Formats: sequence, C-alpha cells, structure tokens
Amino acid sequence: MRNLKLILSYDGSDFVGWQVQPDAVTVQGTLASAIGRITGEKVLPQASGRTDAGVHALAQVVTFATESTIPTANFGKALNDILPASVRALDVEEAAPDFHARKSARAKTYRYRIYRRDICPPFLARYVWHYPYPLDEGAMIDAAERVRGEHDFTSFAAVDPEREKDPPLSNVRTIFSSAWDREGDEFIYTVKGSGFLHHMVRNLVGTLILVGKATLRAEDITRILEAHNRSAAGATVPASGLYLVNVEY
Amino acid sequence: MRNLKLILSYDGSDFVGWQVQPDAVTVQGTLASAIGRITGEKVLPQASGRTDAGVHALAQVVTFATESTIPTANFGKALNDILPASVRALDVEEAAPDFHARKSARAKTYRYRIYRRDICPPFLARYVWHYPYPLDEGAMIDAAERVRGEHDFTSFAAVDPEREKDPPLSNVRTIFSSAWDREGDEFIYTVKGSGFLHHMVRNLVGTLILVGKATLRAEDITRILEAHNRSAAGATVPASGLYLVNVEY
Repeated sequence: MRNLKLILSYDGSDFVGWQVQPDAVTVQGTLASAIGRITGEKVLPQASGRTDAGVHALAQVVTFATESTIPTANFGKALNDILPASVRALDVEEAAPDFHARKSARAKTYRYRIYRRDICPPFLARYVWHYPYPLDEGAMIDAAERVRGEHDFTSFAAVDPEREKDPPLSNVRTIFSSAWDREGDEFIYTVKGSGFLHHMVRNLVGTLILVGKATLRAEDITRILEAHNRSAAGATVPASGLYLVNVEY
Repeated sequence: MRNLKLILSYDGSDFVGWQVQPDAVTVQGTLASAIGRITGEKVLPQASGRTDAGVHALAQVVTFATESTIPTANFGKALNDILPASVRALDVEEAAPDFHARKSARAKTYRYRIYRRDICPPFLARYVWHYPYPLDEGAMIDAAERVRGEHDFTSFAAVDPEREKDPPLSNVRTIFSSAWDREGDEFIYTVKGSGFLHHMVRNLVGTLILVGKATLRAEDITRILEAHNRSAAGATVPASGLYLVNVEY
C-alpha cells in the first residue's frame, strides 16, 4: 500500500466545489473517478482543505492510498489523460505512511484577484472579481497588516454545517502574512496562515473593501476581530477571484 | 437613424459561433437580444465575419442601425450591463451611413496560440491549443513566410454551405503578413490578410504543424497552394487557440 501525494491545479468555475456531493460535479468526485479508472480501486482522495464552488487552486495537495502497482512517476500522466482539462495533476510522489494532506498541513497561502478597470476582458471574467469602483488602496494595505498574528477569527467565519460542535473547535488561527499588491490592472490580496475558517479569506477581502470605500477605517479591523461576531465584518466577496496558492508541511 | 460601430471582445468557448441559429447560444443572438432590450428594436447586428464555435475575438467589429435616442457614449455601458461577462463591448461610435462591418473591411488579423509545455494550466485550457509534442519551430517559421502574397487558397478552405455558388466566388486572397513568434511557453501564429476563407487560419496552422513534424518541408507549402485541393493540406486544428485580433478599414 502506497500513500500518494498529488499536487493538483484546477479551474473551479465549473465545479460546485471540492467536496463530493450526490448528483453534482465536484473536484473530489471527478478525481476519485479518474483514480478509480486507473487503479480499479474505490478511493476518496483527501485534500488539504475543501474549496468552495468557483474557487480555484494553483497547487492543492491531495493524498490517497493505493495498492496499485503503477509506478508513481507514471501516475500524473495517467491522471491527466483522463481528467478534464480544467483539472491537472502537476506532480505525484510517494509520501510517508502517516502523511495526510489536511492533518499534516502547517500553512496555507491564498490569493484574491480584483480586476480594477472599467471593462473586464471576457478572458478574465472567470478568474477575477471585477470591481471597477473607487478604492483607497493605501488604506486597504494598512488595514491588511492588522490581520497578522494570532486571533480568534469568529467575526470572519461563516457557519460551517459540517464542522464538529461538541466540543466546539477553536476559531483561533495565526496569520503569518497579509498584504495587497498592484499587478497591472489587478489589486491582489495574498494571505498566509496556519489555517482558515469557512469563507474566511472572502470575508476578510469583503471587510478590507469597506476600508477601501471609507465605510470603515483601518483601525476598525482590530475592533471587528475582537467582536467575535460575524455581523461586525463585511460581506463575502465572489468565489471567482479566490485561489489556493500552496500548502506547506 | 444612426449607424453604430461596435468593437466587441468575446470568449467563444461557450458559444456555438457568431451566427444566429435556432435553439443555440450564439454571439450574434446574444448581442441582438441585448440591443433589443436597450432600444426596443429588433436588429440583426452584422460582424466583420463569422467566427466558428469556440473561436475568440479580441476586437470583432459589428455594425447595426438604430432609431434609439440613447447617446452613443452610453451605449457600451448599457450593453455591458446586460451582456454575459463572456462578451464585452469595448467601444461604440457612430459610423458613416455607408459603413458596413463586413463589406467595408480591408484587412483582418488572426492569432493562433499553441501551448507547448507538457501540462497545460487549467486556466489556459479554453484559450490555447495544447500541443506538447516535438516541433521544428524554425521550419514552421520558414514555411509561414511562403503563405504571404496573393494566392488562391482553395487548398486551405473548408466547403462553406452558406456561400453563393452561382457564380462561384473567388478563393483568391492576399496575405500581408504570416509569422510565428515564441512568447514564453506559447508558439503563436499571427496572420494578416485581405480576407479569410472558412477554416482557413486553422487549416494553415494544421499544415504548418506538418512542417514542424517534418511530414512536409517548408517548400511543400507552395505546392499545396498550387494544388487548389483541400486534401493536399493538413487537418483543421481546434478552435480554442484562434483569436480574431482586429479588423482594419
């Protein structure tokens, strides 16, 4: 039995998300079916974390066990021959038996792309959030820095129906970096943390946008964190702009 | 009555092509419906030429007549509020009464993008042709130059069921430039001509690929042109890599 570690990139636009669901096209289900065709085994591959409908991955990490004798070096090519073009295996390697894509993860990086010009090219529409209205980008850069460090992120977490409630899990996470950068016509948020709650990156961006619109001041971010109340923060921005960039172990 | 000239960009992936068809999603039909919602008029906008299913446009030119009193400067924004994100009006201006997007065109430029690395990123899959196999790119550059000038392009033309046959129209066209360039991981063909026959760019690329594979030599392009026979040339490459870049008047 080998424990395989797969690096997966996907365009989330046409999937209802990572997690397998009955009668819906998911990344996990599509991948499980491709692995099944190669190995003849029924497996449920495990990702570093779920991504929601429309969310993209540059390098999601996935683990699954197999008794198949197919050489590890051939596995990625075999997968790409079967998977749709919207999902690509970038690399497959054998991992230690106790390595688990989710449980072993120590840090994740996400990116959120906002397209700022008046007309969004049709070729970018699936891959950014088009927000052409005025924003004080300097204030957003200041506000993003206030997210760094260890905090209880309850104010930025959607209620997650799949999460254990008894005992309730902690909403404390550590953010290692949180910054905005201009790249051409895009304003891009990159955040690296020990872990992220449901919708957390999209809720952070939705709140930082309120600072950009001067509805909030940069200092308000600290107050919102301390409120431990979802209604204190801004709205969830669209999935199309969000990318899981990488996972560190 | 104003004659409006519209510059339109579209992602062709989810359309069965430009031209209206019953019970199918076309760019022309989608645009006609948006214009109808704005003006209350039933119009059939005319493009510089049809694009096939999956073919993209960076700057298609479209004309249509309207009695609407909506200022020309507001027309583009009004269209973009209604059109899907895969179709964008880049500019709208008033044209001379006798200007016609197709009949007035003097030159068109097309581009064909080939992605050359082993694994095509999922975010490019709709926008390139993935061809990771060996190609003699130098030979393809030489061969492309042989297409320039005035020729009868029957060997590179698909039979077009919609074209007049009595009297038969000429298949002579002038190619002003025809060249390959490397841009990062892509090998890109750009061709500018007085006009193009049905599938002509995709058939030229499919034939130039045969030179890259050493199935043909660069000199064979001249022989194929002179054959005036579709079966002398290579296969039609996929639509996903093809872009109408611009139209000159």
